[in-house]
Amino acid sequence: MASTFGKKIVTTIFGESHGRGIGVVIDGLPPGEEIDMEELHGFLKRRAPGQSDYTTQRKEEDMPEFLSGLLGNTLTGSPVSAIIRNKDQRSSDYKNILDIPRPSHADYTAYIKYGGNMDMRGGGPFSGRITAPLCVAGGIALQILKRRGVHIAAHLLSAGEIEDCSWDLVTTQVEDLEALKSKDFPTISNESGRKMKAYLGELRQAGDSIGGLIECMAIGLPVGLGEPNYGGFESVLSAAIFSVPGVRGISFGTGFPAAKMKGSEHNDEFEILGGQIRTKTNHGGGVTGGITNGMPIRFHVAMKPTSSISKPQESFSLTENIEKNLVIEGRHDPCIAVRAVPVIEAACALVILDLWEDYYGNKRY
Amino acid sequence: MASTFGKKIVTTIFGESHGRGIGVVIDGLPPGEEIDMEELHGFLKRRAPGQSDYTTQRKEEDMPEFLSGLLGNTLTGSPVSAIIRNKDQRSSDYKNILDIPRPSHADYTAYIKYGGNMDMRGGGPFSGRITAPLCVAGGIALQILKRRGVHIAAHLLSAGEIEDCSWDLVTTQVEDLEALKSKDFPTISNESGRKMKAYLGELRQAGDSIGGLIECMAIGLPVGLGEPNYGGFESVLSAAIFSVPGVRGISFGTGFPAAKMKGSEHNDEFEILGGQIRTKTNHGGGVTGGITNGMPIRFHVAMKPTSSISKPQESFSLTENIEKNLVIEGRHDPCIAVRAVPVIEAACALVILDLWEDYYGNKRY
Amino acid sequence: MASTFGKKIVTTIFGESHGRGIGVVIDGLPPGEEIDMEELHGFLKRRAPGQSDYTTQRKEEDMPEFLSGLLGNTLTGSPVSAIIRNKDQRSSDYKNILDIPRPSHADYTAYIKYGGNMDMRGGGPFSGRITAPLCVAGGIALQILKRRGVHIAAHLLSAGEIEDCSWDLVTTQVEDLEALKSKDFPTISNESGRKMKAYLGELRQAGDSIGGLIECMAIGLPVGLGEPNYGGFESVLSAAIFSVPGVRGISFGTGFPAAKMKGSEHNDEFEILGGQIRTKTNHGGGVTGGITNGMPIRFHVAMKPTSSISKPQESFSLTENIEKNLVIEGRHDPCIAVRAVPVIEAACALVILDLWEDYYGNKRY
Amino acid sequence: MASTFGKKIVTTIFGESHGRGIGVVIDGLPPGEEIDMEELHGFLKRRAPGQSDYTTQRKEEDMPEFLSGLLGNTLTGSPVSAIIRNKDQRSSDYKNILDIPRPSHADYTAYIKYGGNMDMRGGGPFSGRITAPLCVAGGIALQILKRRGVHIAAHLLSAGEIEDCSWDLVTTQVEDLEALKSKDFPTISNESGRKMKAYLGELRQAGDSIGGLIECMAIGLPVGLGEPNYGGFESVLSAAIFSVPGVRGISFGTGFPAAKMKGSEHNDEFEILGGQIRTKTNHGGGVTGGITNGMPIRFHVAMKPTSSISKPQESFSLTENIEKNLVIEGRHDPCIAVRAVPVIEAACALVILDLWEDYYGNKRY
Repeated sequence: MASTFGKKIVTTIFGESHGRGIGVVIDGLPPGEEIDMEELHGFLKRRAPGQSDYTTQRKEEDMPEFLSGLLGNTLTGSPVSAIIRNKDQRSSDYKNILDIPRPSHADYTAYIKYGGNMDMRGGGPFSGRITAPLCVAGGIALQILKRRGVHIAAHLLSAGEIEDCSWDLVTTQVEDLEALKSKDFPTISNESGRKMKAYLGELRQAGDSIGGLIECMAIGLPVGLGEPNYGGFESVLSAAIFSVPGVRGISFGTGFPAAKMKGSEHNDEFEILGGQIRTKTNHGGGVTGGITNGMPIRFHVAMKPTSSISKPQESFSLTENIEKNLVIEGRHDPCIAVRAVPVIEAACALVILDLWEDYYGNKRY
Repeated sequence: MASTFGKKIVTTIFGESHGRGIGVVIDGLPPGEEIDMEELHGFLKRRAPGQSDYTTQRKEEDMPEFLSGLLGNTLTGSPVSAIIRNKDQRSSDYKNILDIPRPSHADYTAYIKYGGNMDMRGGGPFSGRITAPLCVAGGIALQILKRRGVHIAAHLLSAGEIEDCSWDLVTTQVEDLEALKSKDFPTISNESGRKMKAYLGELRQAGDSIGGLIECMAIGLPVGLGEPNYGGFESVLSAAIFSVPGVRGISFGTGFPAAKMKGSEHNDEFEILGGQIRTKTNHGGGVTGGITNGMPIRFHVAMKPTSSISKPQESFSLTENIEKNLVIEGRHDPCIAVRAVPVIEAACALVILDLWEDYYGNKRY
Repeated sequence: MASTFGKKIVTTIFGESHGRGIGVVIDGLPPGEEIDMEELHGFLKRRAPGQSDYTTQRKEEDMPEFLSGLLGNTLTGSPVSAIIRNKDQRSSDYKNILDIPRPSHADYTAYIKYGGNMDMRGGGPFSGRITAPLCVAGGIALQILKRRGVHIAAHLLSAGEIEDCSWDLVTTQVEDLEALKSKDFPTISNESGRKMKAYLGELRQAGDSIGGLIECMAIGLPVGLGEPNYGGFESVLSAAIFSVPGVRGISFGTGFPAAKMKGSEHNDEFEILGGQIRTKTNHGGGVTGGITNGMPIRFHVAMKPTSSISKPQESFSLTENIEKNLVIEGRHDPCIAVRAVPVIEAACALVILDLWEDYYGNKRY
Repeated sequence: MASTFGKKIVTTIFGESHGRGIGVVIDGLPPGEEIDMEELHGFLKRRAPGQSDYTTQRKEEDMPEFLSGLLGNTLTGSPVSAIIRNKDQRSSDYKNILDIPRPSHADYTAYIKYGGNMDMRGGGPFSGRITAPLCVAGGIALQILKRRGVHIAAHLLSAGEIEDCSWDLVTTQVEDLEALKSKDFPTISNESGRKMKAYLGELRQAGDSIGGLIECMAIGLPVGLGEPNYGGFESVLSAAIFSVPGVRGISFGTGFPAAKMKGSEHNDEFEILGGQIRTKTNHGGGVTGGITNGMPIRFHVAMKPTSSISKPQESFSLTENIEKNLVIEGRHDPCIAVRAVPVIEAACALVILDLWEDYYGNKRY
């Protein structure tokens, strides 16, 4: 596997869905920063399952135990490690599918790559559960960045055909971002949220699922983050985002619609406003030449529908090598994009903090 | 900068648009492979400017001189290095813009990050010209992969509103891919190509530009390439693709439309055909859990319109800090996506060869 | 910090001496291998303190709890994580030294680098205790390598002026290496061991400490491990070895005495013995041009004396910035080289397994 | 191969002894620094062959052509690339040895690893000639560091049994280091230098060679460079040093003799001198816990004797697999340690600059 990421903020994730525990090691965090544990727990709860009827009913506590890197709640400069025990493991739910790979899950590829040794119960290390430790790391990064004036938030831009409002590339304010974090469903428009929740309830009844779009924004970045070429902001961020299970696409600024625009429409002309250099539009999404330009960062992430559905599906037996039907039982989110919202914030925060430390260095005293 | 990429096939790019030369070092190429120099030159010509009236008129030879890593035309196992001299540098074209950053170019961010020291003539190291050495590396990778049964090709799926046909995720054959490579314009449909060429001619007259979509496909990959989490196929490929100037988005398989699909539609059910395990559909685009599953790889890349347009634009003076208008002169592609087609193939080939060597190792003798 | 190491076998260490726990994540281990837990525990005991009167009296159990990466005792291919709780923490022993940096410890540099935030009780993350998780990782690597015919062992070549016999660069056999592992003191000669133990007892009484030399050998490596230049066998191994606290030097083959030899003495001439290519001598220590040549690997490691001694020492107050005397209390090894012996084996095993996987790849099924 | 090194200052070396050219790419150098080309050429001449009768008579110009990264002589922030053409290639000298591997050269290991494809004329990429581009990179780093108050120098501490004086770990001054650089033979004592030169002349006559010790010192480093664990100062530096052909050992501070010292002798007690914290002794060689402590850095490097000697040696035929004798013709240094002196300085400078940039960041404007 490739479970370690980052240059200055080096994050290592481990664990399987149904093993003894999962966890994370984060190396390079700035010493002296205090972690607000209550705020961190609040952040983790946004990702946790069992919150309501539009996410999986599996109950977890998912609150991490920190083993190192903290003295009280203050970062020491030593690697922060945190573990989360797996408590609620109804393995029998998955029993019949160990021999029959689930369509669009990693069961088949893992079987080939790891020779049948992988513990694939509940998706094993490919499970969305592994995003919990990522959120521990990202939740810490979000707190540090906020003190540096960087605010990051994401929301569910669409679930299937139901759309939320979009954040504007130029006029969106920090308050707009912060408003999202206290909501019980991650949409800007409460009306859209209600519609989506109703739709997800229907899908749950029907044993089906739906894809979704996530919009993420970061405000308050300095000019200069990101190294051109292979270390450009988009390269580093996209690599992190595609590690989140279910992501199928990412675009920056205006994104795919930019492919239909003329240069005279898409170019971001400059202006000087209140002595500050800025661009009048922000089709580039806050990045030029791989380097942040001080304008808000905005990117869109396409999430596929949850692969675990209750409808019968055609598959085959790994051991017998004959076609077989499969019915997946167990508890599943009808739309993984809902709980992926804070995960995308977490991945984004880790990348920005990493680039920040790389640019500004880690000499502080 | 971050000019080095790859784990086993380590590619380092260098150079600026108007410096003495540009080049590439490729470490880790398998010894004993012979490079067909004619084929490589043919590949490089597909990216080179000055081919016709729908790309920039700047003439270059762009044929690399190899300094190391080859004995005759055979790879030795030592790093391959190649340089391309910059010959045709009309720097005066760019003279007036050194103080006035061009909208949606890296001029402003580079000025801040490098304190005005960067040689930004012609875009400096941010220029599309730097994709020439990337194509030298990728052209070699393409030849090696072809001998291993892997075929990669890309085409221009759309330029503005004009669309080409799309490759099917399941039924596309190697012949379909190979057919593209001899064309003088990279579309499947000649009719679409003619329309695009006419449109690009109009844009050139109007001093404007247009964005485009590129579709890339790779057929013949084994099951098992890509390490889950941060080394997943999509993570590694997207990081490489975003290093290509002008890329604004990437999606795999069905891509962004997957966000509107139900699980029962998007899931790729298995079948056994001629003793081979495969999926009946391929919405996943050949990757599950970050690991190739043996089905064709397909991804889409959104390219923004060329930022250099002839129309007057609003900007400011870096030294005087007052708003100023800007008129960019010089020769520019009306649609950078056209020449980016082989660049995307090159980046894709380098990533696949890198993952291949990582998985199979480099012990050969 | 930089707590992650390796290219294919990626090891991440975390924890402080007096925090809640320490641990390790090992990514890339070959799936399907079974870990003999009893053998692993035996290996860890060789490093553990409290075994006898010539090592520190601090008692630990130090047996790891595995959280992931194992199904039963079989490696799954997912990252192996293991934690060890810190149980026996007499922090008051270290109380007075938190303000007065201990000579030749990391107290002062850590204070400057981490701004006084680091938890330096017991040496914090610089403590030799952090080698316990390294030994968990290395102990697993040793078992895997043994099945591949690679045997690694180390012994205490000298403690101060008392010397053990040296392993011969050509004639040493696997049995010689294996014989070391069951000994309660790591010397080839029992007589040397007895003398050293007596000497260490005297030093303990006197409140002083002594340096030592470790000799490590690896037999059974194939030709070809190690990438020339910055990935050469010596480069990778030395980087790992210097991460072990107290190491001051490393040399390969004949080592520093090679600097006094003539080429006609030092060159390793070839011979063909039983159809096998080998060298008649092995001054190179099994490596040529950074690549293993099939001959036994041998390297020497110089360890400084334990920095914690009971004698009064001159230091200063970090907060008051005036000179102060210091008396270190607590329990300390008179010779850290004794317990470092299995740590050196562990680091060596991890490096060899990493290079092996890099060369042979990780495709197994 | 593994031809790229460094985290923030990323150096990539390429080329073979008898190919068309060799070179280097250095990414991450601070923009705005001016390179004194005359000083750089002076530094490169110290490594160049053909200077006198105690080094190889092969004549090279070895002055690099810079292709990118410089505007005039000022660093732009873009990767610096430099190439050196191979001009004086008497390949026939090496003709007979291509089938018969030279003892203690990389011929045999390269033959196995690269399947006989490597261009091993003159040692190919394993040749000491590849240290020329390393010196280009290191020579630039030395200039930048000097402006930051860091001075680095090395000298030949011994050639065989003939010894030079040693630099003191505490009292050595910048002037002592600088004095070395203008000498035509790299010893502190001119008398020792004369003896060594005479001895090397004798060895040349006899067709033999001798090993040597190099002592390198760096003065003026801040407290705090180096990340503990795998990124410690000694780990990073030793990895770089072992990439230099012929290095067999490295030690820091007092080095191997520390293994015979007591803690009460070896510990570096603190004092406050003129308001500055320093240690009264410096057995640690300027590093504690992997982090620089502000005291002078000193390390020793053991170099083996030149492997190319004129005396007949026993070897075998790679193709016929039978034992054969070998006589190496051509021009060779009797003591590679002489010309390795500036190479060690170069590697040391690159590592220190890399750690500096990592610690202080690369935000400058």
